[in-house]
Amino acid sequence: MSLLIKNATILTMESDEPEFLVANLGIQGNRIVFIGDVPDNFKAVTEIDGTDKVILPGLINSHSHIAMSLLRHYADDLPFWTWLNDRIMPLEHKLTGADIYAGSMLSIAEMIRSGITTFADMYFFVDEIAQAVKETGIRANLSRGLVFNIPEDIEKLDESVELFYKWNNAADGRIKIDIGPHAPYTCGPDYLKKISKIAKDLDIGVHIHISESRREVEEIYSLYKKSPVEYVRDCGIFENRTYAAHCVKVTDDDIKILANNNVSVMNNPGSNLKFGNGFAPVSKMLDAGINISLGTDGPASNNNLNMFEEINLTALVNKAADHSPTSVPAYTALKMATINGAKALGIDNEVGTVTVGKKADLIIIDMNKPHFYPKLNIVSSLIYSAQASDVCSVICDGRLLMRDRQLLTLDEVKVCENADVAAKKMINSK
Amino acid sequence: MSLLIKNATILTMESDEPEFLVANLGIQGNRIVFIGDVPDNFKAVTEIDGTDKVILPGLINSHSHIAMSLLRHYADDLPFWTWLNDRIMPLEHKLTGADIYAGSMLSIAEMIRSGITTFADMYFFVDEIAQAVKETGIRANLSRGLVFNIPEDIEKLDESVELFYKWNNAADGRIKIDIGPHAPYTCGPDYLKKISKIAKDLDIGVHIHISESRREVEEIYSLYKKSPVEYVRDCGIFENRTYAAHCVKVTDDDIKILANNNVSVMNNPGSNLKFGNGFAPVSKMLDAGINISLGTDGPASNNNLNMFEEINLTALVNKAADHSPTSVPAYTALKMATINGAKALGIDNEVGTVTVGKKADLIIIDMNKPHFYPKLNIVSSLIYSAQASDVCSVICDGRLLMRDRQLLTLDEVKVCENADVAAKKMINSK
Repeated sequence: MSLLIKNATILTMESDEPEFLVANLGIQGNRIVFIGDVPDNFKAVTEIDGTDKVILPGLINSHSHIAMSLLRHYADDLPFWTWLNDRIMPLEHKLTGADIYAGSMLSIAEMIRSGITTFADMYFFVDEIAQAVKETGIRANLSRGLVFNIPEDIEKLDESVELFYKWNNAADGRIKIDIGPHAPYTCGPDYLKKISKIAKDLDIGVHIHISESRREVEEIYSLYKKSPVEYVRDCGIFENRTYAAHCVKVTDDDIKILANNNVSVMNNPGSNLKFGNGFAPVSKMLDAGINISLGTDGPASNNNLNMFEEINLTALVNKAADHSPTSVPAYTALKMATINGAKALGIDNEVGTVTVGKKADLIIIDMNKPHFYPKLNIVSSLIYSAQASDVCSVICDGRLLMRDRQLLTLDEVKVCENADVAAKKMINSK
Repeated sequence: MSLLIKNATILTMESDEPEFLVANLGIQGNRIVFIGDVPDNFKAVTEIDGTDKVILPGLINSHSHIAMSLLRHYADDLPFWTWLNDRIMPLEHKLTGADIYAGSMLSIAEMIRSGITTFADMYFFVDEIAQAVKETGIRANLSRGLVFNIPEDIEKLDESVELFYKWNNAADGRIKIDIGPHAPYTCGPDYLKKISKIAKDLDIGVHIHISESRREVEEIYSLYKKSPVEYVRDCGIFENRTYAAHCVKVTDDDIKILANNNVSVMNNPGSNLKFGNGFAPVSKMLDAGINISLGTDGPASNNNLNMFEEINLTALVNKAADHSPTSVPAYTALKMATINGAKALGIDNEVGTVTVGKKADLIIIDMNKPHFYPKLNIVSSLIYSAQASDVCSVICDGRLLMRDRQLLTLDEVKVCENADVAAKKMINSK
């Protein structure tokens, strides 16, 4: 596979300030091989005209439960515990491997359409999610969600290890396996310590939820006289590369601990707002030097997989929460959705910027729309005006997954139908 | 003109709970003439297949300064007063009538593309804005922005009256002229009293900004020992149909006053967040029975004219601000963007719902996208998953303005180019 994009505006995301090149970009195999003049010996099988288009690194959705797309639009505008206990969990217990595959395929179709080339996921039936990743050509860090500190969970620790040997670095290296203790309130201390040891033995990352809600903080304090962050640290989790979702209800001390332990925080504004959990202290965490990435959370709590919305929300909401229009500038929000996500997932040497030698994970934005005019500031327009549908083409690992809004690696009509049938069958079954 | 939409799912927005019909809808001239079986004597010139599509009332953007699209992406992530005094106002002083026309055409293109069929605007060179409305087929309530209580503003009062006689009910009734005192901090008491009298004499509405920022509240209190709401009330403005933008920093007493005087409030979450002004007390205002509509504000402070974003923000942000996932449910947010907007603008007898006998202002949403699957709840999916680009066709006053994403009443390429040239010329001129 060799691919040439001619005369595009490239936002590399390599530096602390926006840097643009107007240049040709060449891909050979799965890597970016040049930016600039086309070498004499480069023969492109596919050419794309980049005029009026902007190339960005593929977006990285660093926290999701993608198969939950099957449950979206089913239970909205409800209190969190009614949503979870009365509506979502009874359905989750009915989910089969085939359902998870159907939901994953639906979500991958939506993610590619909105410019996501990598996602991090925590759920169950991970074999089926990995299969969907393999088939569709997207990139993912997958982890088995580990919940409830009860005997049968021991098996799931084994499952996590098996997943590692079966899938880590599979699909030409697009799949990485991490380990996924669900949250402080669903994992006891011995269990977390075992998980930390497995992560250390396999040299993999830990994907976890921390301090999502006030109730969680109160519950953990009443059990351990610690904050959720302190509790997870004291179980040794942070001795591994850790990426922690939400971190909404963190104290100044928690922020210091997260920073000192190089924990990456996945900000999920859509979900945090929708559940009424409030505003993560993003500016404070940035000031402390924490690597903050962005995620959609599961589509049942969002209800989409649209990273343009999360980027926009991040730039907007923190300005209001901080009473300051200079909080979280546009470019900072875009870094969270690209290179910072790659850092969280431990793949920043391979993806997250548009750099010669890195894997070719790129998206192409069509700037020829009224909302991008007048053309005065590309970064501002991408964060404050763009829609996911402005992504016209998506390349992951050197392969075109979408070209001119046509998905190339899956049958979209069938994928949508299959998910619809699976969801309705599950909901209607006793 | 007669138009038939066959077999569509219609969300009428007529009731307090979502009501759907799957039916045919017929348009004759500029009105909806039937919903249901096609009468024998109805001959459609144009037919649209409504399968897998949802019909909604056209969205109503009830607060904007659309010509400011020329200034967007030019000054972001800055403190409000730096933005206004150092960046925006020096440019605004250079704007010509031709610039305003170019910016208005650009914004109307974007608004039609995102399903807006009516907008309310406050700005200057209103003749040029009205001309753009007339040509493009959209609907608008226009008002001359009246700022600074200084002698030469008297002329602008005359200008407002002249605009009324020239444009009110022009373009087949699509244009209404209201009067637009800018804000409490830019209009003194005598001036506001004169404006109130003109509104009464002409029987038109008053479009105003109130209590947008903390600084405004402090300034008005130091001058008059009143809140901005009390001040505007005491100048007699509320004796007219009044629609007030922002109302972010309102007290419980202010909310009572707004409710008792039937003042409509235009909520502008995108702009309020971006400038760090915070969260309007939407739930409290709803509880008090205030008619709340939605607006994008000017595109230089948003930076788009995407009502799907404002609807989504309204449903999300208030849940977090209220610490309650049941605040501002999806359907409530959608009412704000449709029938409530029509009420604010005094045109709810003509538009704002899909009702036989009303003007045919409709949008058609293509639900055949991955983010709408599984199809479990249309309202939820429209508010929490939809993008503006899901609007496939737009009808205003019985006329197709967009069909299958093609704009029919303006030359989009030319409009984008003209705006780009005008903005750059203005910025580069001394």
